[in-house]
Amino acid sequence: MFALANGHVGIRGNLDEGEPHDSLGTYLSGFYEEHVLPYPESGYGYPESGQTMVNVTDGKLVRLLVDDEPFDVRYGTLRSHERELDFRAGTLRREAEWVSPAGRPVKIRSTRLVSFAQRAVIGIAYEVEALEETRVILQSELVANEPRPVAVTNGDPRVAAALDQPLDPVTADAEHVGAVLVHRTRSSDLLLAAGMDHDIDAVGQFEVEQQVRPDWARTTVVAVLQPGETLRLVKYVAYGWSATRSEPALRDQVAAALISARYAGWDTLKLAQRAFLDEFWAGADVEVDGDPVLQQAMRFALFHVLQAGARTERRAIGAKALTGTGYSGHTFWDIEGFVLPVLTLTHPQAAADALRWRASTLDLARQRARTLGLAGAAFPWRTINGEETSAYWPASTAAPHVNADVARAFEEYRLITGDTGLERECGLEVLVETARLWRSLGHHDRHGVWHIDGVTGPDEYTALTDDNVFTNLMAARNLQAAADAAARNPQQATGLGVTTEEVALWRAAAEAVHVPYDEELGVHSQCESFTRFGEWDFEASSGRYLLLMHAPYFQLYRKQVVKQADLVLAMQWFPERFTAEQRARNLDYYERRTVRDSSLSACTQAVLCAQAGHLELAHDYLHEAALVDLRDIHGNTGHGVHIASLAGAWTALVAGFGGLGHGETTTLRLAPALPDAITRLVFRVRWRGTPVRVEVADGQVRCSLPGPRARLPVRIYDEEVVVTSARPVSRPLRPREPLLATPEQPPGLGPRVRARPRD
Amino acid sequence: MFALANGHVGIRGNLDEGEPHDSLGTYLSGFYEEHVLPYPESGYGYPESGQTMVNVTDGKLVRLLVDDEPFDVRYGTLRSHERELDFRAGTLRREAEWVSPAGRPVKIRSTRLVSFAQRAVIGIAYEVEALEETRVILQSELVANEPRPVAVTNGDPRVAAALDQPLDPVTADAEHVGAVLVHRTRSSDLLLAAGMDHDIDAVGQFEVEQQVRPDWARTTVVAVLQPGETLRLVKYVAYGWSATRSEPALRDQVAAALISARYAGWDTLKLAQRAFLDEFWAGADVEVDGDPVLQQAMRFALFHVLQAGARTERRAIGAKALTGTGYSGHTFWDIEGFVLPVLTLTHPQAAADALRWRASTLDLARQRARTLGLAGAAFPWRTINGEETSAYWPASTAAPHVNADVARAFEEYRLITGDTGLERECGLEVLVETARLWRSLGHHDRHGVWHIDGVTGPDEYTALTDDNVFTNLMAARNLQAAADAAARNPQQATGLGVTTEEVALWRAAAEAVHVPYDEELGVHSQCESFTRFGEWDFEASSGRYLLLMHAPYFQLYRKQVVKQADLVLAMQWFPERFTAEQRARNLDYYERRTVRDSSLSACTQAVLCAQAGHLELAHDYLHEAALVDLRDIHGNTGHGVHIASLAGAWTALVAGFGGLGHGETTTLRLAPALPDAITRLVFRVRWRGTPVRVEVADGQVRCSLPGPRARLPVRIYDEEVVVTSARPVSRPLRPREPLLATPEQPPGLGPRVRARPRD
Repeated sequence: MFALANGHVGIRGNLDEGEPHDSLGTYLSGFYEEHVLPYPESGYGYPESGQTMVNVTDGKLVRLLVDDEPFDVRYGTLRSHERELDFRAGTLRREAEWVSPAGRPVKIRSTRLVSFAQRAVIGIAYEVEALEETRVILQSELVANEPRPVAVTNGDPRVAAALDQPLDPVTADAEHVGAVLVHRTRSSDLLLAAGMDHDIDAVGQFEVEQQVRPDWARTTVVAVLQPGETLRLVKYVAYGWSATRSEPALRDQVAAALISARYAGWDTLKLAQRAFLDEFWAGADVEVDGDPVLQQAMRFALFHVLQAGARTERRAIGAKALTGTGYSGHTFWDIEGFVLPVLTLTHPQAAADALRWRASTLDLARQRARTLGLAGAAFPWRTINGEETSAYWPASTAAPHVNADVARAFEEYRLITGDTGLERECGLEVLVETARLWRSLGHHDRHGVWHIDGVTGPDEYTALTDDNVFTNLMAARNLQAAADAAARNPQQATGLGVTTEEVALWRAAAEAVHVPYDEELGVHSQCESFTRFGEWDFEASSGRYLLLMHAPYFQLYRKQVVKQADLVLAMQWFPERFTAEQRARNLDYYERRTVRDSSLSACTQAVLCAQAGHLELAHDYLHEAALVDLRDIHGNTGHGVHIASLAGAWTALVAGFGGLGHGETTTLRLAPALPDAITRLVFRVRWRGTPVRVEVADGQVRCSLPGPRARLPVRIYDEEVVVTSARPVSRPLRPREPLLATPEQPPGLGPRVRARPRD
Repeated sequence: MFALANGHVGIRGNLDEGEPHDSLGTYLSGFYEEHVLPYPESGYGYPESGQTMVNVTDGKLVRLLVDDEPFDVRYGTLRSHERELDFRAGTLRREAEWVSPAGRPVKIRSTRLVSFAQRAVIGIAYEVEALEETRVILQSELVANEPRPVAVTNGDPRVAAALDQPLDPVTADAEHVGAVLVHRTRSSDLLLAAGMDHDIDAVGQFEVEQQVRPDWARTTVVAVLQPGETLRLVKYVAYGWSATRSEPALRDQVAAALISARYAGWDTLKLAQRAFLDEFWAGADVEVDGDPVLQQAMRFALFHVLQAGARTERRAIGAKALTGTGYSGHTFWDIEGFVLPVLTLTHPQAAADALRWRASTLDLARQRARTLGLAGAAFPWRTINGEETSAYWPASTAAPHVNADVARAFEEYRLITGDTGLERECGLEVLVETARLWRSLGHHDRHGVWHIDGVTGPDEYTALTDDNVFTNLMAARNLQAAADAAARNPQQATGLGVTTEEVALWRAAAEAVHVPYDEELGVHSQCESFTRFGEWDFEASSGRYLLLMHAPYFQLYRKQVVKQADLVLAMQWFPERFTAEQRARNLDYYERRTVRDSSLSACTQAVLCAQAGHLELAHDYLHEAALVDLRDIHGNTGHGVHIASLAGAWTALVAGFGGLGHGETTTLRLAPALPDAITRLVFRVRWRGTPVRVEVADGQVRCSLPGPRARLPVRIYDEEVVVTSARPVSRPLRPREPLLATPEQPPGLGPRVRARPRD
């Protein structure tokens, strides 16, 4: 939770002195080691090599010795200890008062930041104040190849070997008051330079010593402090890494980053950090009156979403961003599906860069499609560098919706920002190549209906299905979007080999897409035959979740049990495809069968419950999504925060209660409704370059444009209005009446945290 | 091809001197080593440990030195060399005339047998005759831990480690003119004793020396032979192995087997072998006039089927029996599906023993069902010891038809032999537990139709399907058979907890089973939606078979491409469920989509083509099935012979051209029709204990009972007759007119060998 990152460099919230710790972590975007994927029975097209984010050279370490006794919260007496993650300052502050085992009291204050302004740089200001006369030693370190915690190696000795001591030393040099260590990964052959430098400030005399070894460097400061005197160390850490640049080039790059940081100085770094965040929050902050827990959680969520994407700059955003090694640091469809739409609305340049990264992997995706015998491009299910690394094909290769999720993220970006440059730059090519993929994945039956067989939708408990509604609708939209984009950019489309015949086929497939519907039950069937499958015995499963830890895929796949929102996600992303009655009945049907064994579900359930008028249940689901890490709901926040759930929580608030949407047009739509406990909701988005502020309070929704000379058409409920900077628009709230009773969940599987006590 | 076995012990056709070789092999039924199965992404219920048949202590070795030069066919001059597998003698004979590099000519004659009478014993008579005065040395050896050939270790170092030097030495002792070596496997903890003893016979003087080491023992005979003199060595080898017995017990057991063999002597071993085979062939031989290639192939097939099962005695029969390490020595559904029905008709006691083995694994199968969340018993997809070891669940755990295949084998045994004792002994329990499995696998929809979803039928290119016709029919028959068996054995059924309510549920499910049929096309759909799936692009796949080596499962599963007979196998095993018109149309439809990437397909296609009147095509398929190893059609006969294809070839001849069947009754049915080239067909079966001889020749079918005082009702075409020993019955042959033109196969995928040239 206390991790700091800027999308480029990330550090876990480890204590300055390194111990005690769950796992030490310093991560660099796109920096990984490879390892062989062992299959007991291999198959054609199985990825041969896996990728794992590496804990790189640790620059966070500042160890303190008080009269030779190491500061360690497990020993001596800890009079007070507080850490504060400041969302506006962009820092992690710490204050402790500690009495050494020998009885020497000191106060320790440290402040850390991972700079948004200088993206290669970490700064740490560390102060120790003596309360009695004390000899104080500070050891500021760089340490490579820290002991690996018990990692997800599946018990495979080769994976463990690949990740044990993953960094081979290349060079180690002292620089100014610090050092630069250069390492290389053995198998992925990535070069890494990590450097540190220091400013030291003390009233009296102090001495400095330096040691540099291949795997570590240490700058030691010794001083004798009188009561009330402070020794202050500012540590600048910088990283550079590359698959192509040379060792001297990287070493120089890091030295330059260090001198640039030291030249700016600590105060300037802090000011720049604050300025960056002021700008962000001005266009993104939410205010949730009446629910202080949610208020804090939403800002925590936005802060981590920003940290995930702010300066990623054409590298993948992992599902845990740079906060832990969960999912090996891989990116999944949840980034395009859940995270980028939020960045698009709040910090669009980050979304654009993440999309540019995807586009930069098109050649790999084309190769993958060829391997699979398909046309176009097939983006990987999980990856760091763009190559497919998923070792279980029924839930990866068989889930091509990832391609449509990417296409949708491009479309959302275009519709919401109004920026058409990204489409010309790379979006068109992505839309065209994914459309080609879909054409080769689907086929027309003898009645002209278009089907996609044997695929897995978002619900990983129902795999290799025919005509998954979500996938089919996504494919159709992808085809339609590619056709429209080709029409908008005819010359570039021709350059990509697109013909009018090809476009006609895309449109024909999209228009003929099959959407299974069970007439008898009056609900959509998540996939063909789903509503005819056997029911899951939820009573027998009581207390045995995650289900995949207690039941084989064989059983899960053949029953009506849903891991995560699938048909319900289709209703969120395709509101125009479902009537209010269908929405109500579908929600009721799938709520009873959804076990929410994925953190990607509650946020979607929250939106649909809100839209269907079940505002209190939506509020509960929103809490579950937003508090996923603050309450460690899945028990694995230690592996990193759940970026997509955090982003989805914001969407749940803004789209669910705020009623924000666009209905596939460029017009902002609002249709808010609040649950009982939330007395006032304010949110801010950027729409087609214009900052927009929406306030829902006192029975009114008020839309205003904080910037100068702005003008924006907005649809509030079903009324088209024009908002200008000078003339905010207010309209009375309309009630949302549910058509059905509040849906029920399988026994014991209601929202895991509740916004308020229930009967 | 030259492998000898008796179901208990098997030796590959390696040269006596061991070299050159593809892979050395001596195998013991049920003797295996375990190894960890490594998964890059594991899942609940995945088997953790694999099993691999081990090449045990080699007792075949007899090395010859001629004046210090080793006899090796790669050196010197090989004047002649012939080996002969004698199906009636049950021996492998070899004759060679060789001139050593130094110019010394010798004649070598050896004869091997793996005794059907003394099942632990191998005998080798080895003679060397000098053509000039020559010093001759024979080294007869036992060698453990021979170098492993490149095995299927999937590149996993742990699997390779488990199979490298798999035998830990326990004791090594000289015994008489020989030795006994005892070893133990490291992980599976199985104990193995291998012993040898010798009779030596020479005109002049000879000397004998013995050496015994932990991993090898050597008996050396030295003699100087005059021209025309012969040194003759008879080697007796015996094996014992156990998971439970002690080392002294095993050592004594082997010593006893050796003394018993030596006491009998070589000639007696040979006579007993001949007697066993005379008895077998009297009830099993086939005569195929007009097609000498097929004539030889059918006897080869029957001989290997007998070698696979004769003395297995409650251990599993592997897919390669004891002839090679293909499929790691595992047993699969093909044994019950294809091999046991043949043994039931020709050597029923072997079938009974194999079924007893299955029944002995019921506890493991019950445990597996519990793991999977199912009732009853779930037999493993592949195993040596009864535990599931398959590492790819969509083609194993998801293919529960193996359970119905086992049940069917029990039913075939009961109907054909008339033996009801096996059902009481263990068959009823198997039927009941598999019926319980099916009940928990299937479910009724809201219209009362019974479905089985998410399973894989025989066609491994179409997996995780709903309502696979083959599986559904097999399940229904399994349920019905269990219900009938419970009614026949009410007390025992009660002892198994069977109630009348449970039986009623079995019958209800069986009667309501869904059988997908495409009304528009007038064909059965192999599974739900199959006939709606996209077509495979066979043109693009030209020359790229096996398809699974060139296309991902993802693509294979979602298309109309069939690896092996599935719906067509359903038509073979359920003739009464399909009209002649359906049979013709279904065959035509599936022939066009079947790539026959499995050796389990041609034999079934042969039967159906014959039944549909496409006799020439059937003849071609029969050749492909029968010559699978003699022509090495799949290029992997080196891994062991294809027992199921060989057994299936016999079935293709007898059921396809002979028209033999029983229609779920106890009455033998005959409806023969021959292809042009076969002028006369004779086959023999045992029916309800009675030897039956059927001759099809000269436009007549003639059924006779060779034994004394026998009487058997037989249905010839649609006429019920009674055959007695005294009164054979002859009837004129009826033509089989095809309803449709000869079906076509995908381009280039017609029968791989052809019985005769085609236009």
